[in-house]
Amino acid sequence: MEDRERHRLIALKEAMHDHLHSGIIPFWLERAHDTEHGGYLTDFNHKGLATGTPEKYLNTQARLTWWFSRLYRIYPAIDAYRVLAARGIDFLIASFWDPEQGGWVWKVRRDGSCLDDGKITYGQSFAIYALAEYYLATSDRRALDYASQTFDLLQKYAADTQWGGYYENLEENWTISKPGFEGGDRKSLDAHMHLMESFTTLYEASGADVHRRKLLEIVGLITDRMVDPVVGCGLNQFDTAWTPLSAIAIRRTWNAERPGDAPATPIETTSYGHNIELVWLMWRALDAIAVDRSRTAPLLRRLLDHALTHGVDWQYGGIYRDGLRDGGPVVLEKEFWQQAEALVGFLDGYAFYGEARFLDAVECIWQFAQRRMVIQGVGEWRTLLDRAGEPLDARIGNPWKVCYHTGRAMLECITRLDELLRQP
Amino acid sequence: MEDRERHRLIALKEAMHDHLHSGIIPFWLERAHDTEHGGYLTDFNHKGLATGTPEKYLNTQARLTWWFSRLYRIYPAIDAYRVLAARGIDFLIASFWDPEQGGWVWKVRRDGSCLDDGKITYGQSFAIYALAEYYLATSDRRALDYASQTFDLLQKYAADTQWGGYYENLEENWTISKPGFEGGDRKSLDAHMHLMESFTTLYEASGADVHRRKLLEIVGLITDRMVDPVVGCGLNQFDTAWTPLSAIAIRRTWNAERPGDAPATPIETTSYGHNIELVWLMWRALDAIAVDRSRTAPLLRRLLDHALTHGVDWQYGGIYRDGLRDGGPVVLEKEFWQQAEALVGFLDGYAFYGEARFLDAVECIWQFAQRRMVIQGVGEWRTLLDRAGEPLDARIGNPWKVCYHTGRAMLECITRLDELLRQP
Repeated sequence: MEDRERHRLIALKEAMHDHLHSGIIPFWLERAHDTEHGGYLTDFNHKGLATGTPEKYLNTQARLTWWFSRLYRIYPAIDAYRVLAARGIDFLIASFWDPEQGGWVWKVRRDGSCLDDGKITYGQSFAIYALAEYYLATSDRRALDYASQTFDLLQKYAADTQWGGYYENLEENWTISKPGFEGGDRKSLDAHMHLMESFTTLYEASGADVHRRKLLEIVGLITDRMVDPVVGCGLNQFDTAWTPLSAIAIRRTWNAERPGDAPATPIETTSYGHNIELVWLMWRALDAIAVDRSRTAPLLRRLLDHALTHGVDWQYGGIYRDGLRDGGPVVLEKEFWQQAEALVGFLDGYAFYGEARFLDAVECIWQFAQRRMVIQGVGEWRTLLDRAGEPLDARIGNPWKVCYHTGRAMLECITRLDELLRQP
Repeated sequence: MEDRERHRLIALKEAMHDHLHSGIIPFWLERAHDTEHGGYLTDFNHKGLATGTPEKYLNTQARLTWWFSRLYRIYPAIDAYRVLAARGIDFLIASFWDPEQGGWVWKVRRDGSCLDDGKITYGQSFAIYALAEYYLATSDRRALDYASQTFDLLQKYAADTQWGGYYENLEENWTISKPGFEGGDRKSLDAHMHLMESFTTLYEASGADVHRRKLLEIVGLITDRMVDPVVGCGLNQFDTAWTPLSAIAIRRTWNAERPGDAPATPIETTSYGHNIELVWLMWRALDAIAVDRSRTAPLLRRLLDHALTHGVDWQYGGIYRDGLRDGGPVVLEKEFWQQAEALVGFLDGYAFYGEARFLDAVECIWQFAQRRMVIQGVGEWRTLLDRAGEPLDARIGNPWKVCYHTGRAMLECITRLDELLRQP
């Protein structure tokens, strides 16, 4: 490796390490725990002040549980991480687990009483992700048991034995929700990508053949059905038989509850952020099950190329929100999570293909994020900026955000940078 | 209805009723129970004498359990049926249930000790069929619990979430068997048709939405992928992605263990017996879940037409074993089960479409079966005849046969004939 390149990697690593340890980690360690009701607070303004958390979502409670579990697995000497993770596990089991129907409800009030007992596959997936990570960090069998049970429930109720894949929106008794806005007749790349993510951690925790196999089946589904292999981008939504459809808003999960999201009209766009997130999550999955990357490498390279060519804003920095499938960007705003996932995905591309342009993209996005997204002195990221970096939504935490993307990106990037720097 | 037609129906009904009650029912009532080791004996020669049952298969132990349960549900006054059914249930649970891995092993010795602990989807399906019928007959919750648990295990381990449908050959720990002769990379109409059959009874027993839904998914799979809609016949085997393949022998189930079966070379034939069995089992499934027959009626009519045109032997009587997909018969032998299933399927066709030629087919097959298959004075059917009706395998019972086809055909036909005769 040339000295210049090494210096670039070192600079990235130091900046990210600093941001992680003096920003993101202390931010959530100090604020996340809801000392009054258990579980976590998720809502914080741009100063980092709690703004009240009237609603607790399964996915963000699980994401913070995952976060503290992950930290404890990496830094087992710091018991505070374990304590914080256990608070999340306890609250999940006490307030989100449905003892009658099995599975995890979607939304509770701050005090843990149920607000929405729907069974959302996306949420079940994050529960598995958190529980399996907690087991890996603590060896607490109870967490692995709940994770395996959730996997079994998905197989029983959500899996579609006619067309493959999973139904995504189910009611409290695991019947499939109505079509249309309720989402009962739609499948999405988003949900299946996150199932791939959680099944990877579940397999890592259990070593069970069936977890490995169903993970491979999702990888096959995504590569064969959910990605446009010619232009190299992910497709959003499908009918149950995998015919691609224009994306519509879905009641509980997609574009219907997050502020600043696109209007609820059918859209034909692709998400650069999802596409790049898909690259590194798929490689992580394949590595975990010891499947060679070569079969997927050409396809994933096209995803990286598409995002690099059309999604990266080389002028202002960062990566755009959404673009046309085979053309340029159409939503030029910069949202927090796409920046975070693009850092990891492009760094993976750089490490795997060894091309400098992927490292250029990492720097372009990181510099933008550091300068515009991160709130200096507070330590976390704003939610949404305009193209030039002016805040459109300056909040640090909302019911969907927390630090799963931002903090994880730092952890993942630092691991990759360390590995790259170990090379001669 | 014209008098002539009514007389034909009455004659059929009386002959079948007589054969059932003075032949099949007493035959098995007197001989089936293995008083020494529990469960059932399955091997009998042409005189009805037991020839020893060194091996007990899951599917035939389950089929006889189903048989006595079915009889008890129809004739609850006759306690002997309940007693015989309970003997089957007890032996299944004691000798076939795998308490460690869950599910039912494939084969045991006469004394119940395990010979083959593979988990064969076809066998799991017959276990569900027997357990659910036993529950319907006796309200014994234990049986429904085992049936539901077996369903859950199939969803978890056998269901293919990439391409839909079920893997059919799995090892003792529910990992998928090797490709080729072990059958790990094959899917078949046979296994999926029998899953449709057992899920129908399971839904009848449980009323559970998930059982109904997965049943509908199989119906969709069969109609969309497993039947040639143009010529009207079922396809035999497929790869996991549903590409039709020439059929090969499969170790535990298909053409590899039954005497008199075709050699283990790839074949491109269709089974008239399966095609007609499929018709009535699918209508039974749709009726059970209150789905109108109209969507499937055109396709199922083509199956009936194909079998009637190419499969019925109007000269010697009966129905041939196998034929070419779009041509005439190639294996002219007459096997017991195809005759039995064709009686029910053609009678269904007659009742639904109201065309006399289907009744002609019923009579043509019944007369052949009665004259050539049934062993007079003994009361059960021979296994295999040549085209003209000379015995090739005169045994009444072998490890795969018992009275699931023959006895069920009598019960099903009598029900249909009664219904037809109630019409003005």
